Amino acid sequence: MNAPTTSAQFQPRAISPEFLQALAERFGAQCSTAPAVREQHGRDEGSIDAPPPVAVVFALSTQDVADCIKLAAQHNVPVIPYGAGTSLEGHLLAVQGGVSIDVSRMNQVLRVNAEDMTVTVQPGILRKALNDAIKDQGLFFPIDPGADASIGGMTATRASGTNAVRYGTMRENVLALEVVTASGEVIRTGNRAKKSAAGYDLTRLLIGSEGTLGIFTEITLRLYPLPEAVSAAVCSFPTIADAVHTVIQTIQMGVPIARVELVDAGTIAMVNQHSHLTLREEATLMMEFHGSPNGVKEQAELVQDIAGEFSAQGFEWADTPEERTRLFTARHNAYFAAIQSRPGCRSITTDTCVPISRLADCLLESMEEADASGIPYFLVGHVGDGNFHFGYLIDPENAEEREKAEAMNHRLVRRAIAMEGTCTGEHGIGIHKQGFLVEECGEGAMAMMRAIKQALDPQNILNPGKIFTL
Amino acid sequence: MNAPTTSAQFQPRAISPEFLQALAERFGAQCSTAPAVREQHGRDEGSIDAPPPVAVVFALSTQDVADCIKLAAQHNVPVIPYGAGTSLEGHLLAVQGGVSIDVSRMNQVLRVNAEDMTVTVQPGILRKALNDAIKDQGLFFPIDPGADASIGGMTATRASGTNAVRYGTMRENVLALEVVTASGEVIRTGNRAKKSAAGYDLTRLLIGSEGTLGIFTEITLRLYPLPEAVSAAVCSFPTIADAVHTVIQTIQMGVPIARVELVDAGTIAMVNQHSHLTLREEATLMMEFHGSPNGVKEQAELVQDIAGEFSAQGFEWADTPEERTRLFTARHNAYFAAIQSRPGCRSITTDTCVPISRLADCLLESMEEADASGIPYFLVGHVGDGNFHFGYLIDPENAEEREKAEAMNHRLVRRAIAMEGTCTGEHGIGIHKQGFLVEECGEGAMAMMRAIKQALDPQNILNPGKIFTL
Repeated sequence: MNAPTTSAQFQPRAISPEFLQALAERFGAQCSTAPAVREQHGRDEGSIDAPPPVAVVFALSTQDVADCIKLAAQHNVPVIPYGAGTSLEGHLLAVQGGVSIDVSRMNQVLRVNAEDMTVTVQPGILRKALNDAIKDQGLFFPIDPGADASIGGMTATRASGTNAVRYGTMRENVLALEVVTASGEVIRTGNRAKKSAAGYDLTRLLIGSEGTLGIFTEITLRLYPLPEAVSAAVCSFPTIADAVHTVIQTIQMGVPIARVELVDAGTIAMVNQHSHLTLREEATLMMEFHGSPNGVKEQAELVQDIAGEFSAQGFEWADTPEERTRLFTARHNAYFAAIQSRPGCRSITTDTCVPISRLADCLLESMEEADASGIPYFLVGHVGDGNFHFGYLIDPENAEEREKAEAMNHRLVRRAIAMEGTCTGEHGIGIHKQGFLVEECGEGAMAMMRAIKQALDPQNILNPGKIFTL
Repeated sequence: MNAPTTSAQFQPRAISPEFLQALAERFGAQCSTAPAVREQHGRDEGSIDAPPPVAVVFALSTQDVADCIKLAAQHNVPVIPYGAGTSLEGHLLAVQGGVSIDVSRMNQVLRVNAEDMTVTVQPGILRKALNDAIKDQGLFFPIDPGADASIGGMTATRASGTNAVRYGTMRENVLALEVVTASGEVIRTGNRAKKSAAGYDLTRLLIGSEGTLGIFTEITLRLYPLPEAVSAAVCSFPTIADAVHTVIQTIQMGVPIARVELVDAGTIAMVNQHSHLTLREEATLMMEFHGSPNGVKEQAELVQDIAGEFSAQGFEWADTPEERTRLFTARHNAYFAAIQSRPGCRSITTDTCVPISRLADCLLESMEEADASGIPYFLVGHVGDGNFHFGYLIDPENAEEREKAEAMNHRLVRRAIAMEGTCTGEHGIGIHKQGFLVEECGEGAMAMMRAIKQALDPQNILNPGKIFTL
């Protein structure tokens, strides 16, 4: 049984003054060693801290990234790509020292192909900025992990979010990449054809590789037509199981539901407290339907019928943007309401994903355990995919509480794996879930991953110490 | 510029009598060296021939596959997985000698999880048998490459076919694999969760790896609910461009069309001749819609309106299975009608796929060239994906004709690549398209593929000489 990996991996490599000098010469004002800049680039939104990188390079071009990696390779220095800093599993931490390559200024839309519904962007663009840039063409990029993450970071962690149930994840929506490899070479994978059987699927191998196999410098994405009509609905249920069975039946009937989010009763209570609302404090589903005006009406009615069979109450639906936003309030505010319910707390956020047939069991067992622990928590789920997040709200100064929460996360992961699920639906492994990954994949698959890493990055300079240690 | 790779690769390795003896001892009657059995396993439905494998092992279990690979590794002997023998690019040819591992008797449905809409099968099951086995549960597996291929082969070639436009390809629909690696070890990749961000996406790396990284022994697939209603429609257009623009607009409007196939005027004429029909000899679209009864009606009407704007004629639609089959006659019979239009001919079948905005241009230029060549051809396309197949109907005894057709294929591939497309949408690389792959991917991506192959199969015993040579 492997415990989550933490500080054992913090082994900064020796970095020579020659390297720093070469970096300063090549990058001038684009390179910073100011403590505040380094500090900012050495952490993410997760719960683990580490010493900062030795320098930050602000890349403006593919050539900048390539030159930085070439210098790093010459001096055996780790490089860590940095986008928006929103990852949760310690992806950005300089656990072996090295340089942070900040691509946030590489944030341009390079090309929209409206007829093909594709767009090519630089990795630093944020997802909301991307959607603003393309909406005039009647298109949108559906992947929505909540945070306004960078497309590069979303690609590197195989992100998904609330409407993956209909549109898939980054896995399904990245068509092609420009990548700088461990030797500083620039390669391309994939193309703009919708499908291809040409050789190994390097694009899919790189998606979710967390910066350990290459650094992205261009990303081509699939887009979708803005739906003609959007409607939203909410309703609440006496039990979590009723909510989950409503979702199972909805999906089995082939309803192309675009979002279906679960918020548990306790979290609704936190939102009511935080936002002075009077939402029904029960397990609640929030749904969104995309399609033609008739289509979304048909979908919503069908789901209302199904929900009725599972004792749903308070079914409300809305089709104006304002009303839709109102219906989703509890989902949008869940995290902030939870964090503010315990001042000074930090959230240890779980990310298991199970086959939907096991979802009710997995949720109920885990809630029982969390209730018994005495640690307050929130619970939200992308329930159409079987993916859900507990946020255990710990006092960061209380080691015992942290340990208790980590142990609970570990038991939840084991429960999910036993149910043929995964330790991470969308956040990635980083440094936090490495032990879980081994439990999930087994040594055989781990050996295959390590062999690939060693073949493609023999010096282990690309975000070393993430996903696994060599 | 690399020519398609052919006989240059036929370099059988020396195989020791000790190996054959060990094989016979382990596998007894499950191992055959009969010439007819070897011949049958040494070819596929493509246009290239090679000497047969030295033996065929009929595997009945994962252990059989593992033991066969272990013996092969000990003796440095190539192994080539064999399912239904329907591949088109020489995937099954024993170009470096070795043993064919026939998994066709590993053809069981191991587990259906109806609530999760997943199924786990052995690799030898044929797609029609799979669909027969699950239809009583209201489920189906949508990937339809035409041939009644094995699920293992479809996974190995990243197959797709007529309804990928709605349901995706094998890339999107394989969730998990059990795989025997080059050392004979059994590993598992993926799980039954709908999504995962856990480590490198080994499942996607193995899908489309054409037997060169491992041999599949179990495959877990996504299923879909049998649509409540299905309707089909056909119509014809004065020009190919009109047909393509109808499809572009249909997709841009977000119509979830399930199939949209193009058959060109000349191919319709072949079908009329072959089946004594009187179909309008024009570029023809054949479409299928899946959904609720109202939904499919709405979709069909919308597409009829769009087609009308592009001068469509003879719009017919049908919702009974018999009528739908009748409407698709021309598509189903195209290949046979074409082959029989020139007795004794063999088809050199192209497989390019381009962004849909370039599809009309690519088709028109390629048709002009094919018309000028004097070689008869058929043309069908999975036009919603930008994927299409010319079949150049050559006299196999006529070397000049073969060369002319190969050169035409090569120019078509270059055209597709220049249009940001791929040399193969769904058939794979095999031995036939290796030169094309280099042109498409560039040396950088090829080096990455080779490094992965060398890391995972250092002896190069897994289907060597396919996709690339080392």
